[in-house]
Amino acid sequence: MASANYTYEHFNITFPSQYVAQVEIARPQKLNAFIEQMWTDLGAIFRKLSVDPDVRAVILTAAGDRAFTSGLDVQAASQNGVLAQTEHADPARKALSIRRHILEFQRDITAIEECEKPVVAVMHGISYGLAIDMTVCCDIRICAEDTRFSVREVDIGLAADIGTLTRLPKANVPLSWTKEVCLTARDFDAGEALRVGFVSAVCESKSAALKKALEMATLLASKSPVAVQSTKQILNYSRDHSVADGLNQIALLNSAMLQTKDVEAAMLSGLKKRKPTFAKL
Amino acid sequence: MASANYTYEHFNITFPSQYVAQVEIARPQKLNAFIEQMWTDLGAIFRKLSVDPDVRAVILTAAGDRAFTSGLDVQAASQNGVLAQTEHADPARKALSIRRHILEFQRDITAIEECEKPVVAVMHGISYGLAIDMTVCCDIRICAEDTRFSVREVDIGLAADIGTLTRLPKANVPLSWTKEVCLTARDFDAGEALRVGFVSAVCESKSAALKKALEMATLLASKSPVAVQSTKQILNYSRDHSVADGLNQIALLNSAMLQTKDVEAAMLSGLKKRKPTFAKL
Amino acid sequence: MASANYTYEHFNITFPSQYVAQVEIARPQKLNAFIEQMWTDLGAIFRKLSVDPDVRAVILTAAGDRAFTSGLDVQAASQNGVLAQTEHADPARKALSIRRHILEFQRDITAIEECEKPVVAVMHGISYGLAIDMTVCCDIRICAEDTRFSVREVDIGLAADIGTLTRLPKANVPLSWTKEVCLTARDFDAGEALRVGFVSAVCESKSAALKKALEMATLLASKSPVAVQSTKQILNYSRDHSVADGLNQIALLNSAMLQTKDVEAAMLSGLKKRKPTFAKL
Amino acid sequence: MASANYTYEHFNITFPSQYVAQVEIARPQKLNAFIEQMWTDLGAIFRKLSVDPDVRAVILTAAGDRAFTSGLDVQAASQNGVLAQTEHADPARKALSIRRHILEFQRDITAIEECEKPVVAVMHGISYGLAIDMTVCCDIRICAEDTRFSVREVDIGLAADIGTLTRLPKANVPLSWTKEVCLTARDFDAGEALRVGFVSAVCESKSAALKKALEMATLLASKSPVAVQSTKQILNYSRDHSVADGLNQIALLNSAMLQTKDVEAAMLSGLKKRKPTFAKL
Amino acid sequence: MASANYTYEHFNITFPSQYVAQVEIARPQKLNAFIEQMWTDLGAIFRKLSVDPDVRAVILTAAGDRAFTSGLDVQAASQNGVLAQTEHADPARKALSIRRHILEFQRDITAIEECEKPVVAVMHGISYGLAIDMTVCCDIRICAEDTRFSVREVDIGLAADIGTLTRLPKANVPLSWTKEVCLTARDFDAGEALRVGFVSAVCESKSAALKKALEMATLLASKSPVAVQSTKQILNYSRDHSVADGLNQIALLNSAMLQTKDVEAAMLSGLKKRKPTFAKL
Amino acid sequence: MASANYTYEHFNITFPSQYVAQVEIARPQKLNAFIEQMWTDLGAIFRKLSVDPDVRAVILTAAGDRAFTSGLDVQAASQNGVLAQTEHADPARKALSIRRHILEFQRDITAIEECEKPVVAVMHGISYGLAIDMTVCCDIRICAEDTRFSVREVDIGLAADIGTLTRLPKANVPLSWTKEVCLTARDFDAGEALRVGFVSAVCESKSAALKKALEMATLLASKSPVAVQSTKQILNYSRDHSVADGLNQIALLNSAMLQTKDVEAAMLSGLKKRKPTFAKL
Repeated sequence: MASANYTYEHFNITFPSQYVAQVEIARPQKLNAFIEQMWTDLGAIFRKLSVDPDVRAVILTAAGDRAFTSGLDVQAASQNGVLAQTEHADPARKALSIRRHILEFQRDITAIEECEKPVVAVMHGISYGLAIDMTVCCDIRICAEDTRFSVREVDIGLAADIGTLTRLPKANVPLSWTKEVCLTARDFDAGEALRVGFVSAVCESKSAALKKALEMATLLASKSPVAVQSTKQILNYSRDHSVADGLNQIALLNSAMLQTKDVEAAMLSGLKKRKPTFAKL
Repeated sequence: MASANYTYEHFNITFPSQYVAQVEIARPQKLNAFIEQMWTDLGAIFRKLSVDPDVRAVILTAAGDRAFTSGLDVQAASQNGVLAQTEHADPARKALSIRRHILEFQRDITAIEECEKPVVAVMHGISYGLAIDMTVCCDIRICAEDTRFSVREVDIGLAADIGTLTRLPKANVPLSWTKEVCLTARDFDAGEALRVGFVSAVCESKSAALKKALEMATLLASKSPVAVQSTKQILNYSRDHSVADGLNQIALLNSAMLQTKDVEAAMLSGLKKRKPTFAKL
Repeated sequence: MASANYTYEHFNITFPSQYVAQVEIARPQKLNAFIEQMWTDLGAIFRKLSVDPDVRAVILTAAGDRAFTSGLDVQAASQNGVLAQTEHADPARKALSIRRHILEFQRDITAIEECEKPVVAVMHGISYGLAIDMTVCCDIRICAEDTRFSVREVDIGLAADIGTLTRLPKANVPLSWTKEVCLTARDFDAGEALRVGFVSAVCESKSAALKKALEMATLLASKSPVAVQSTKQILNYSRDHSVADGLNQIALLNSAMLQTKDVEAAMLSGLKKRKPTFAKL
Repeated sequence: MASANYTYEHFNITFPSQYVAQVEIARPQKLNAFIEQMWTDLGAIFRKLSVDPDVRAVILTAAGDRAFTSGLDVQAASQNGVLAQTEHADPARKALSIRRHILEFQRDITAIEECEKPVVAVMHGISYGLAIDMTVCCDIRICAEDTRFSVREVDIGLAADIGTLTRLPKANVPLSWTKEVCLTARDFDAGEALRVGFVSAVCESKSAALKKALEMATLLASKSPVAVQSTKQILNYSRDHSVADGLNQIALLNSAMLQTKDVEAAMLSGLKKRKPTFAKL
Repeated sequence: MASANYTYEHFNITFPSQYVAQVEIARPQKLNAFIEQMWTDLGAIFRKLSVDPDVRAVILTAAGDRAFTSGLDVQAASQNGVLAQTEHADPARKALSIRRHILEFQRDITAIEECEKPVVAVMHGISYGLAIDMTVCCDIRICAEDTRFSVREVDIGLAADIGTLTRLPKANVPLSWTKEVCLTARDFDAGEALRVGFVSAVCESKSAALKKALEMATLLASKSPVAVQSTKQILNYSRDHSVADGLNQIALLNSAMLQTKDVEAAMLSGLKKRKPTFAKL
Repeated sequence: MASANYTYEHFNITFPSQYVAQVEIARPQKLNAFIEQMWTDLGAIFRKLSVDPDVRAVILTAAGDRAFTSGLDVQAASQNGVLAQTEHADPARKALSIRRHILEFQRDITAIEECEKPVVAVMHGISYGLAIDMTVCCDIRICAEDTRFSVREVDIGLAADIGTLTRLPKANVPLSWTKEVCLTARDFDAGEALRVGFVSAVCESKSAALKKALEMATLLASKSPVAVQSTKQILNYSRDHSVADGLNQIALLNSAMLQTKDVEAAMLSGLKKRKPTFAKL
């Protein structure tokens, strides 16, 4: 079932059950800190998974015991980053370069959100900075008890610009709490993340969390891909549009989607108590 | 106090206290499953309540012990539905028919949200599919301890298209949880619904929940209808508009509403510790 | 560190630690009820703090043990308010006057939200009506255990028009709860406020809450003002715009902000474990 | 080809060519001035035409030589209107009644815009007030040389509230001109209407304009109804949404519409130079 | 009829007919070029006119024969401007100062648009840069034949930031033309301005244009101020909102405005052919 | 000045003057009809030009005398298109494939609009279908006298889905005219295109139009690229956002852009009447 062309230096892509892909961030010796090549690859991976007919659900996890990711590899960024490259330009020209750079970075992370298949994030250990930017793009977030989260960017002198400040206020976690953790850059733990609703579940260990994510992803992958992917699409659309627009959008989408054979297959299997089979999408 | 012209085959409309109407879904032998006539009637009922000067608060409940509603009557839908009627059309023409059908269905359910009076939902037992679409249109949701909820649609091969996927992301319950229950179609119980904030209160039984709802509706009905209905209107408006637009809207609305005699009546009754009387609206 | 020109009849402005301003509502003999001069002054104070280079974080609190504020001074409003002044105009002309009056009132309260520096609200005792309008404009809300909150306006015959009904549905507290407290005008206590996420923390007393707020504000004031103020700005922007617009906005903002010297200072201090110094903004 | 059930006291509905319906306002002895029954009927007519499979294009015209319409029948309105009915209510309660009344009136006129089929307006003679509200809802506007237009409402002491002030700024006629004619209520003639683009064509007489409209409607009715109705839908959608939203909408719509047999029929007929036939929609 | 408190160094405020105010830019020796004090004063003037019950229409014109205005006084700006003041700050801190400065400048020009009374712009001679920013805020634009317009900013190395690039695309003049004149900074004359619709009328001389503007303003001032000001308000609102929002807004506004006595006065005067009198607003 | 890496089978990229690139569609033997490879290449070309520091203005033209483009190569599309590839899928699965295909097609055409440099379109001869989709993405449109335009799609049984129906209603050409040409698919000529404002200028021949475009592009390329590109950006942004959002956007953009050295260079050159030099961007 596994596909051959998912080979990347800092990511392991596996297929732990039918129609389920698992993306593992794999630079554990550096606490899975991100260098530019990594976010470029991450974008490519999720764009590929998005249209791969053999994939119906995705898990995002990270290698090693210590960290999901410590965030941006600050040392690498300060040596090779866009600021270093535009040293002699005037501030306006520097600004243009920086902006292009940020927009490209954002596009690669946004690929997770735009992946047509549902994505389950499994966090553990240090989950700082980019960890929030990435997982707030995922559909469902769960974590191990040892997870330590932080919207870290203020402490390196900047406002988080890869998505956290834009998406977290729309994740329906209390705004007073959101502002506190974004403005103070303080750590919060798994219990707090569960209480405010940033994660849906906390497991006792990374492996327990992965097991739970795999069960969930396998369940999602067993359902009609037409139904699951349409559901994800409308949930994301609704977040950014009025109710009137959202109702029109789902009516328009379902005007084609209800013509699928999956409805009949799903109903029959419900009546006959057997597992339905759905064609590739 | 009761009005005569609220007679419907599958709904009982009663007036349990002054200015309070109670709408009971009444097809208990079929777990209150919905056939097309029912949502057409439901829309008509709420459009009538919306402008009835004798009504200031509404309760939505359902007959029988087992279910608030099991959702769409799938069997009926597959026999008489829009798909059956357009069998010979090409997919584009089918799509147009389906879309019109969905939009009409949505309009009838949206009538609950657009009702000018506050609506309190009281759920119990099986509360699947359409149960969520309808109650997420209500202003306040409470339930009995035995309630079992599910956004069931994915399991019949389709994305929920009557409002759940559009309104639930705006009900300010955590988005990670919302996506999980919508994508997996799993059950959740009253305790979970309370913890995430989908319901405001859980009572030990259906009758206790109804009692609480009646107290709440009676309280709402005792207040200035100008104040209560303006409050509902602005809360709904604000959900879908920017803060700047929302502030302008309430300023414009109150430019007329503050000319009511209710303000004086309310203040006097506050000072004199007696119950105020407010003219019909 | 204190500035001389912050003298107002009903507000005490102090500077309890470096770069931290504290605004105390000071009409305790009247439960800190607001008369028109007070909201005009409040707007002026926050507009001044917004551009004062010696201020990087603000605390909003209130004098006395009994109340943060009981809200609008209703007696004063009924004697001198806009309705009294336009007695002989026709309803259209009255409406225009009322609307101008509400918009000005809103502008003064909105000055809290538009203050470029983060604002921490510390509530205690009676916190009714305007207390919610004001603190929902603050970034972080904490309170003492004895706080009694209420969106009181419905009980004086009107819909709250100074911001509560517009901003509370966007504070990411459950909408069913929000509607219940706005429509019923019932009291809720500190525990409930914490549970739904309206406040981020509850302290055992007003003085404990003030101590916590001061620590938080001092922490915020010690960080790069470029980073902190950009973070606040984007969080507020994101609440009212789509994710696509939000991402563009932070990319554009950071195209200039990343050219600050604060990033280098923050990184160095991180490496060298010493406290960084940031230039005034 | 004509349908039987289009009988209305003040409207003549005819079917002058295949798939073309013509709606004629018919109260010429009163300059086609509108009383309440008329706009209620107009709404009903266009909602019926919208879903009538025998109709693919609509013409809106008016009986008599002197006027398309002089607008609202002011005398009737002042005797039976909503203001008369709410005489004893307080200004807030009156406002609520007035608002409901305006919204219903708007809904009936908006039915023209929401008609799924393209509508061609043919104006002549006096075309005041409601004439603009109605025809700005039509897709294509043409007129006779003798037409005298006016956004008349300011001269009866009110702002036009049935759509002109909302839709005219979006009809892409110069805004300086739009504001001048709306604020001054001055007349403008056919030549001016053509020059600014309010109408697409001017014909020498009412009958010539009707002939041109019939040719245009017949042409529209001869084309694929899937193509024509989708085109109308997206043009209307785009007016009120961003380009990004508009592109997504047409992609979603066409994902079903391109599965029609009309594309093949249209292409073949293009190659073979014969007239295609399209199934009913 | 004239008010006493409209005295400004670089503006002459006169009252040429009943309820009509005329604002004349008066720095003709410098081609009416703007220094900071001038836009601050301009904002103050229009905010005052907006609420002055003796004013119902405003004319904006400029002193001298040669220029309406040559735009920003570039020499003054380069000596005292915000860039000079922040010389030693880092680019991020400079950016913050510049931004505050632009926003304040914009607010003063936007005061023209936000003036509740209609504003007629009369341009002549050189009308460069700020001339476009200001007059695109006016409701109706007319000009003398000798007017030479230019969106000049690109030629001093910057994008126009006081409103032209934001409002001109919404003035319903062809976008291809708009972009050409904004990108090339080329001159265009009165004839071209009329042809594309930027101005509504061209007169043979400045004095003829002023005469026409005075007639128009006098006409506007003779009508119901409730009707005129509501009309302006909704036209501006509609430009930036969807049709659905616009229809709701005018329904809400008119729910109070139709309770005016002006409707009766206007109707009676229409029947009796005499000039109506309307109370102050 | 020319760059080496702009080689494409069906496009000729040349550099006719300093900083000016010219993109010529080059499939004249097929009336420049588009096959899939061509729009993929077109997207790539404009994305490259967008960030090429040697390019400051772009001309879009087409080879041969007969046509700018006749639009989509319908024959090729029907043989290799997405419909052919998904023959055996159910209508829902087909819809998903079609939608992905349209979105990719749109993205490539949108690359013209997103190009950071201004683009001048020069049309001639047959300019059908895709000709409108592409040039409505350009900033300035001019054409030869012999141009014959048509929004052709309705005549092949479909609604135009690559941008025309979305962008033309926002090009500020009269909406009645826009709907007429989109719904009827009729031809219109250069004179009509100029009269409604779809093009800014008509030249007597293709070569005269190209000459004019080159002068215009050369002029644009001689100006500050900071000023020109910021101007384009804000004009595009403003089309899709409210005035309030537009003003904030340009204030934020200019907070960095005004720190350019171009302002000083432009001003000096203005004073000294010599041509300024601007650094690459």
